[in-house]
Amino acid sequence: MGVDGILISDLANVRYLSGFTGSSAYVIITKNQAILLTDFRYQEQAAHEVKGYSIVIEHNEKTSEIKDICGGYGIKQLGFEDHNITFAFYNKLLKRKIALKPISNIVESLRIIKSAEELSCIKTAVKRAESAFKTLLPRIRVGVTEKKLALQLEYFLKKEGCKTVPFAAIVASGPMSALPHAQPTERKLKKGDLVVIDWGGECDGYFSDMTRTLLIKGNNISKQKELYYNVFEAQNRAIQSVKAGVKSAVIDAAARDYIKEKGFDEYFGHGTGHGVGLAVHEKPVVSWRNNEVIAERMVFTIEPGIYLPDFGGVRIEDLVVAGKRGADVLTSLPKKLKIIAR
Amino acid sequence: MGVDGILISDLANVRYLSGFTGSSAYVIITKNQAILLTDFRYQEQAAHEVKGYSIVIEHNEKTSEIKDICGGYGIKQLGFEDHNITFAFYNKLLKRKIALKPISNIVESLRIIKSAEELSCIKTAVKRAESAFKTLLPRIRVGVTEKKLALQLEYFLKKEGCKTVPFAAIVASGPMSALPHAQPTERKLKKGDLVVIDWGGECDGYFSDMTRTLLIKGNNISKQKELYYNVFEAQNRAIQSVKAGVKSAVIDAAARDYIKEKGFDEYFGHGTGHGVGLAVHEKPVVSWRNNEVIAERMVFTIEPGIYLPDFGGVRIEDLVVAGKRGADVLTSLPKKLKIIAR
Repeated sequence: MGVDGILISDLANVRYLSGFTGSSAYVIITKNQAILLTDFRYQEQAAHEVKGYSIVIEHNEKTSEIKDICGGYGIKQLGFEDHNITFAFYNKLLKRKIALKPISNIVESLRIIKSAEELSCIKTAVKRAESAFKTLLPRIRVGVTEKKLALQLEYFLKKEGCKTVPFAAIVASGPMSALPHAQPTERKLKKGDLVVIDWGGECDGYFSDMTRTLLIKGNNISKQKELYYNVFEAQNRAIQSVKAGVKSAVIDAAARDYIKEKGFDEYFGHGTGHGVGLAVHEKPVVSWRNNEVIAERMVFTIEPGIYLPDFGGVRIEDLVVAGKRGADVLTSLPKKLKIIAR
Repeated sequence: MGVDGILISDLANVRYLSGFTGSSAYVIITKNQAILLTDFRYQEQAAHEVKGYSIVIEHNEKTSEIKDICGGYGIKQLGFEDHNITFAFYNKLLKRKIALKPISNIVESLRIIKSAEELSCIKTAVKRAESAFKTLLPRIRVGVTEKKLALQLEYFLKKEGCKTVPFAAIVASGPMSALPHAQPTERKLKKGDLVVIDWGGECDGYFSDMTRTLLIKGNNISKQKELYYNVFEAQNRAIQSVKAGVKSAVIDAAARDYIKEKGFDEYFGHGTGHGVGLAVHEKPVVSWRNNEVIAERMVFTIEPGIYLPDFGGVRIEDLVVAGKRGADVLTSLPKKLKIIAR
């Protein structure tokens, strides 16, 4: 790539390469050496977590430390992650007279294919998320607020062993469920509500992501059921279309074409899925805009939805691993419409 | 500033200006107009939250939408936040032939001085954090794990009304307390442990941040007490030094000089404090490296510490508002050493 070293600044990439889990660090890799630069607060943690790296503790400005490392390790041309380094930081490095070259997707291209160890972490993250949901399920009833359910779900996730959660759990009921990224409110669940619950688990830094939509029993629920089974079938078709060698846009089309056929395409505005690993949104992007080819051991979500403003929405989301002949679905929670009568 | 418009991409700045709380949006401000650009997922939320802005929903690549807005509003030269825009995004904008100018600290210079409404949110965030801690206090005892305490503390914070927490609560006991940013572990509290607890609350997007260090009763605790009262006095001196017009480095020195006098300066490696608002780490930076002058209604932490490797650490952190004659301390939890005998 025409560089003597690369500066890794994206924290998920830092973790992937070095094992360091703190919130402030850079990795510099040369042909023969690996250096981790962090600050005083993480001195002991870095010593515990990071093996095979020279650990440098910052005493001066970060760019000055990077300059010194370049000098010490004979780095004349330094690659950097242009998706992560800000324009201001780039200019600070330039002022230190460091010769720079933007480099993209070096670590991401490794991360997109999951190793057996990584798959095992992701599976545990799924398991924790599903166990937490099962604990929550009996508490979902008419009169309980979205906020209370979301709070309990997060508590159960942590009790299952998740150190963090990938995002604040979404519990969106009735008309709120028409907002794909609704934040939980004080709204109480009512009869006839669609209830979208979108949450994820964690294990050793790896995430899971899933969504289930429930229906609270009511007198007039045929429209809700129609939406549900349209999304159900669209999601199923997308999963069936997954295998190594297929283009991401083809998977998206499998869901989108069905939803279009049913007349709801204008109510499905987001992509069909996204990769999940050390970041909860990573490559591949499963979207009509993307021509990326799916490969074995890529892990991503399949999550079509239909959102009718002021009425409600449905989303069903599973996590899958692409295989030679098809998808291995990691999520095991049932998908048949659950109608809650309490 | 020689521009016809500015692109605001930092999400805390987007929220500060527009009130939008979602996770993906840009604001563009011209002399007479304000535009919020977000995606389909946030269409309804933006309509609810944002008043006085033209709301544009993305249909194409973000940089293409930004180009169109520049065209539509006659923006020839666009300022951008260089601390936030990545090098890659900058280059994508350049390729769209948008004339760009890096602009720093426009919104930050507004955010650093808190309005009465903002102070009221921060005070509520402090109150919620303190109530949660009071609920936790009786559960702190020999044999309980750090993780369990941290999990309960977060649960209580959310129950108090915090929508998010500014960071994962730190509960670090015994030798772990020597790591300023330790993550809670399965370690059980033991007799003689110093226990550092660092946590924050939230209200309407505004955060609070505080730390208390407790001591578990034991046979040989004179060293722990010595560390504690050194930090206690250093923290007190730093608070006493706060007033409008003083340099940030002077406040830092008030704590640091005392710790040096006691012979522990090499064990206090971090700065004395940081601003808190819509971000839990914002301006001003209270550090020996910073010559910024403190002004009325700046809100920041005062949090010196001493960390003895393999032994333990002490940190005491309050949140203060700078006033004409001195600091208004927002934190009300007692600071006298609490020795727990259970």
